Amino acid sequence: MSRCYEDLSGPEIATNISPSSILLLPVGAVEQHGPHLPLSVDHVIAHETATALVDECGDRLDVWQLPTISISKSNEHAWSPGTLYLSAETLMAMLRDIGRSISATGAERLVLLNGHGGNTTHLETALRELRLEFGLKTFLMHPMIPPAHGGHSAEHEMGMGIHGGLDETSVFMHLRPNEVHLDKAGRRVPEILDQNDHVKFGGSVSFGWLSNDFNPDGYIGDPTGATAEHGRQLFEQSITTLSKAMEEIRTFDFGR
Amino acid sequence: MSRCYEDLSGPEIATNISPSSILLLPVGAVEQHGPHLPLSVDHVIAHETATALVDECGDRLDVWQLPTISISKSNEHAWSPGTLYLSAETLMAMLRDIGRSISATGAERLVLLNGHGGNTTHLETALRELRLEFGLKTFLMHPMIPPAHGGHSAEHEMGMGIHGGLDETSVFMHLRPNEVHLDKAGRRVPEILDQNDHVKFGGSVSFGWLSNDFNPDGYIGDPTGATAEHGRQLFEQSITTLSKAMEEIRTFDFGR
Amino acid sequence: MSRCYEDLSGPEIATNISPSSILLLPVGAVEQHGPHLPLSVDHVIAHETATALVDECGDRLDVWQLPTISISKSNEHAWSPGTLYLSAETLMAMLRDIGRSISATGAERLVLLNGHGGNTTHLETALRELRLEFGLKTFLMHPMIPPAHGGHSAEHEMGMGIHGGLDETSVFMHLRPNEVHLDKAGRRVPEILDQNDHVKFGGSVSFGWLSNDFNPDGYIGDPTGATAEHGRQLFEQSITTLSKAMEEIRTFDFGR
Amino acid sequence: MSRCYEDLSGPEIATNISPSSILLLPVGAVEQHGPHLPLSVDHVIAHETATALVDECGDRLDVWQLPTISISKSNEHAWSPGTLYLSAETLMAMLRDIGRSISATGAERLVLLNGHGGNTTHLETALRELRLEFGLKTFLMHPMIPPAHGGHSAEHEMGMGIHGGLDETSVFMHLRPNEVHLDKAGRRVPEILDQNDHVKFGGSVSFGWLSNDFNPDGYIGDPTGATAEHGRQLFEQSITTLSKAMEEIRTFDFGR
Amino acid sequence: MSRCYEDLSGPEIATNISPSSILLLPVGAVEQHGPHLPLSVDHVIAHETATALVDECGDRLDVWQLPTISISKSNEHAWSPGTLYLSAETLMAMLRDIGRSISATGAERLVLLNGHGGNTTHLETALRELRLEFGLKTFLMHPMIPPAHGGHSAEHEMGMGIHGGLDETSVFMHLRPNEVHLDKAGRRVPEILDQNDHVKFGGSVSFGWLSNDFNPDGYIGDPTGATAEHGRQLFEQSITTLSKAMEEIRTFDFGR
Amino acid sequence: MSRCYEDLSGPEIATNISPSSILLLPVGAVEQHGPHLPLSVDHVIAHETATALVDECGDRLDVWQLPTISISKSNEHAWSPGTLYLSAETLMAMLRDIGRSISATGAERLVLLNGHGGNTTHLETALRELRLEFGLKTFLMHPMIPPAHGGHSAEHEMGMGIHGGLDETSVFMHLRPNEVHLDKAGRRVPEILDQNDHVKFGGSVSFGWLSNDFNPDGYIGDPTGATAEHGRQLFEQSITTLSKAMEEIRTFDFGR
Repeated sequence: MSRCYEDLSGPEIATNISPSSILLLPVGAVEQHGPHLPLSVDHVIAHETATALVDECGDRLDVWQLPTISISKSNEHAWSPGTLYLSAETLMAMLRDIGRSISATGAERLVLLNGHGGNTTHLETALRELRLEFGLKTFLMHPMIPPAHGGHSAEHEMGMGIHGGLDETSVFMHLRPNEVHLDKAGRRVPEILDQNDHVKFGGSVSFGWLSNDFNPDGYIGDPTGATAEHGRQLFEQSITTLSKAMEEIRTFDFGR
Repeated sequence: MSRCYEDLSGPEIATNISPSSILLLPVGAVEQHGPHLPLSVDHVIAHETATALVDECGDRLDVWQLPTISISKSNEHAWSPGTLYLSAETLMAMLRDIGRSISATGAERLVLLNGHGGNTTHLETALRELRLEFGLKTFLMHPMIPPAHGGHSAEHEMGMGIHGGLDETSVFMHLRPNEVHLDKAGRRVPEILDQNDHVKFGGSVSFGWLSNDFNPDGYIGDPTGATAEHGRQLFEQSITTLSKAMEEIRTFDFGR
Repeated sequence: MSRCYEDLSGPEIATNISPSSILLLPVGAVEQHGPHLPLSVDHVIAHETATALVDECGDRLDVWQLPTISISKSNEHAWSPGTLYLSAETLMAMLRDIGRSISATGAERLVLLNGHGGNTTHLETALRELRLEFGLKTFLMHPMIPPAHGGHSAEHEMGMGIHGGLDETSVFMHLRPNEVHLDKAGRRVPEILDQNDHVKFGGSVSFGWLSNDFNPDGYIGDPTGATAEHGRQLFEQSITTLSKAMEEIRTFDFGR
Repeated sequence: MSRCYEDLSGPEIATNISPSSILLLPVGAVEQHGPHLPLSVDHVIAHETATALVDECGDRLDVWQLPTISISKSNEHAWSPGTLYLSAETLMAMLRDIGRSISATGAERLVLLNGHGGNTTHLETALRELRLEFGLKTFLMHPMIPPAHGGHSAEHEMGMGIHGGLDETSVFMHLRPNEVHLDKAGRRVPEILDQNDHVKFGGSVSFGWLSNDFNPDGYIGDPTGATAEHGRQLFEQSITTLSKAMEEIRTFDFGR
Repeated sequence: MSRCYEDLSGPEIATNISPSSILLLPVGAVEQHGPHLPLSVDHVIAHETATALVDECGDRLDVWQLPTISISKSNEHAWSPGTLYLSAETLMAMLRDIGRSISATGAERLVLLNGHGGNTTHLETALRELRLEFGLKTFLMHPMIPPAHGGHSAEHEMGMGIHGGLDETSVFMHLRPNEVHLDKAGRRVPEILDQNDHVKFGGSVSFGWLSNDFNPDGYIGDPTGATAEHGRQLFEQSITTLSKAMEEIRTFDFGR
Repeated sequence: MSRCYEDLSGPEIATNISPSSILLLPVGAVEQHGPHLPLSVDHVIAHETATALVDECGDRLDVWQLPTISISKSNEHAWSPGTLYLSAETLMAMLRDIGRSISATGAERLVLLNGHGGNTTHLETALRELRLEFGLKTFLMHPMIPPAHGGHSAEHEMGMGIHGGLDETSVFMHLRPNEVHLDKAGRRVPEILDQNDHVKFGGSVSFGWLSNDFNPDGYIGDPTGATAEHGRQLFEQSITTLSKAMEEIRTFDFGR
């Protein structure tokens, strides 16, 4: 049986979705990723990760895959024609509407799977709002943990491969081998930030930035060494990790 | 070359999208369609129609397919768990955000391809708002013209095959042969409306309705005779018609 | 006894308004209609139609006339100083507020009588929203059915007498004989649209337009042959038709 | 020539409205006024005062009468079915929209003539907002100065004839002699407030109240002695006073 | 025991706040007051007045002091860099949020103590909104009654010492002796307004103004004779008056 | 000279605030912190940290202290009467308003100093929004880095001393020695979370929580060993660290 939520009929929702079900909402983005990658990167990665994850653990953990949100909060790339972006208010309203709809199904667990770093604070905000307003247990996971949140970044990227860099480019090469133009990419690491102890990606002081603040090409990192094989490893590792996280989500309890 | 907008990179947008380009935004819905159809019907039809239409005329008419909006304004089905719906305000905000993003590309023509009748007034509203605020030439087309707007409806449906009825079910059978359960469907035609000259679907007086106002099953029409072959004919006819409409859109001018 | 809602006192509302009552809300507009007509056209027509309609059937069908909304959503005429317009958000908020107030009276049927085409999608939207939020049975009627929705338009106007054209000008001449300046009017029919099969007023593809898109004078149609007598006929015919529609509204039932 | 703004055509606005013109916007209300008065009281008084005022000084001072806003912010009467009320947000949005439209005409002076005390703080707020956003010179006047703002109130009403009391009832009797039912009215003066030096109508400390806080009948004052003759005097006096105020408005200057 | 609300713990709120408690919310502003006064004037006066008032009557009347709102609605000074201002919508949202929070404590009386004239209409609006939505008894008091509302203004200021004038400057000198630069101040009385009988501060016709409408220095009044001693008298008198008002608030009843 | 922004007059802003100035906005909260701490904890810590920080580096680095926001986004504690909380929308609107005001001064750097974890995602969101809309360079720092973001948490708290735990209680004891009631506190560590590798505070999967999800007392951590001396060390260390961060902020550059 399909594990895509929308493949169910109305009456089937009633019989298949229960308090122990986990609903998984992939959130992508359509935004510039430099000259070597298409606008679709975050959309594709979020969608493919969700699909692979549900293949892996959907039946076992009663996971249902919601339709992928393609367009989200990408205004750090608003300077680049092509980027499609929602305002913060629109994204939050959309998440609230979806949360309200989901709470009506009887499901109690909603997982946001976020492919775009610019959504993170908004989705984290939504975790609390949806918990408070609709009583849902809410979770946020990422295909790859962003370097700015403690995730991996290749050494030569100095922890700054955050947008169109080595890992993201590699994963996308794995997923869409013919859509990457590495020949158009170079090194775009804002090394100046490495002088800072506090004010840097993942540092103790956050800072506001737009993707053209660092360079006019709008990507941040060094994708020049990206390979599909590296991407494959990252992707499979991601599915393994996320699958384990889903097991924790399945039994998550506040302990009260 | 792909005609999917999101397959372009940022720099490719600049070279490929011009004032003569037509951007096509399919708008679906995830909502109950009775026991015989999955929630995805409008989503699938909008997406597949857009894809077939761009296949047919994309290169000829410089059409680019935007990512399909899956979830939209379906609150007439809010009573039925499973339906995912945005508020009117959220949908309008999303359309405005997308219109603003698109106007930055240099494209001047935006076509909304709407798979869900409950969106129609909102999308028509958006036509004017996006024209006024961003100067876009805006258009709204439907995979099938709704009976309420003068489109076809089988005689035995008395013009009321408007949600999960004969034609929609047939088209979906053509597109997803294994996902229809005709055995669960019956006749759900609100014949009482046929007594009216004015207050009826497509009549001179509109009325507010929810999909469970007429019957508890939430579909309106009589899908019992639906066949994939009838659906194929409707779908192909639709592509032919929409393609001709796209030619008019390509050269549309106000004449001033 | 007066059939004007506001002529009742608070306690009289309780004794006179019942579930079988019909509340009628005329919605006008104050917007440019070319050089031959005053800004008031839609306001006057909506108000006078409502008044004549209530005269005709108010006692018989228990209809109560609400105060006419004079200013509404006219931003297609925003380019023309003089036009007073609400934003879409303001109009929807106003309708929601009024719907909430009305639902408190015990009335169950609300009819919007719309004198301005630019309001149509908004009022149709309101039909559903007010039904869902307040449980009202809601209806939308027009003094004259717009040509774009299948109504009459003189042949020489080619179905495009939609703003300040023959019929509207004639009806206004009937209602306010001294306020029309036919000598200032000419033919303003955007004939270029007639080449289209789909993208035209009333066609299968809607399009966004502003009233100065077609010509700098802002009216659309050919009022040169307008007469008060033609207007009288249209007006009386309208009252007859709307009165019949009101009878259907009086007994309207979803059949469930 | 008519001094009603909406009787002008679009082109006539351009020739008739100038920086020296004064636009007058009457703001009424449709709300319960006790058992002796209809819902229309504030609507009628605002409209009739505006009409008489424009008759008196319109030509002399270049005043143009805008359509009367009938429904406004009356939620202190929300408890009483019949009352039609806008939220504060809706009223402010409406005033902003109208201010924007008016600023496009070239007029620089906008006068709000307020028939309903519950609007006062909102309209005063609008004075500043419209001045700041659109550069308009803005003014607020009242048919009768509310006792709470230093206006007259009959001695036996102890300064508390603020809603459906002696003066308002009398003025309405003058304007609509057949619509007042004095036999249903009594004395509804919240004498307890008279013990206070500060917390009372017109005192140094304002307080929030709803019209049923004081008594279940919802009017405040003592209309039992109301007469049309007293109303006529008040009304004529009001026109005289407002006309003088309009002269000051005509030449008003900040002196900078 | 501290009478500062925020010095209580959560459980202490439950035991100390009761229906007879009065919660006092001081509302200040951070806005230009001419060259002789710092931006903090309204913030300081609101805060110090609240503190002195609670010292005087807090234990006796069960008053609890809420944290002072520092930044509020000051857009009449938006032209002057330094001014920090909220929009009207933001201020109202903040007050609603606070009212909702307070209604959860069991307190029934909320007093707004307003140090900034530009907030007055908004706070008065809030009185009613909070009463209606949360059932609170709500009150608004001012450290000094504004001349525009019948309060004192030195004779040579002609009733126009409304912003940075004699009294306000004096009170601030009393509270912050070292922060006033009288040498930078002169007479800024818009005497032209004195010609008017109606359109003037405190007149029967209100008007919209910005603080640089009258002169480029942005203060209105004549602070040249200000002294700390005069300020001390005003301040102490204010505490005495407000304390008496608080007694009335303590026992305030609508009499129904 | 005072380094408090509001102690400047309007003209002094013009002469003292320059593009090299840093504006520091402390953001507190008024919310329950268990039975051992007052509502004021976050408000006090944010304010005192800002004050000490400006004392330390204000003159050296041209830092100006804005008035402390006392009430913010605390709805995870909405269940506990006493908590004062803004909605997410209100907080974001307030930050936008303040950002707009600040951008008018000519300052280019705005630092948010956040005392309340529940604000973090909102303030991080604001960093980008204010950068995009007003061109400000924006930063977010915390008095203590939250354990959930990699900061310190005592071993026996297992990384979960996040609200009213050892460190926060200690710092508050240092700042307000007489306001802590350790005798009312116990151990409230949700040890169940320690079983998880991913779904836990600071784990790779975030989750939505309210402060009473874990236990009915609403604090999370183990404050029983708190001491003022430990608090003093943490506080001083914090000032040292933040001061170094301010130096980086002073010279921060994107490197483009």
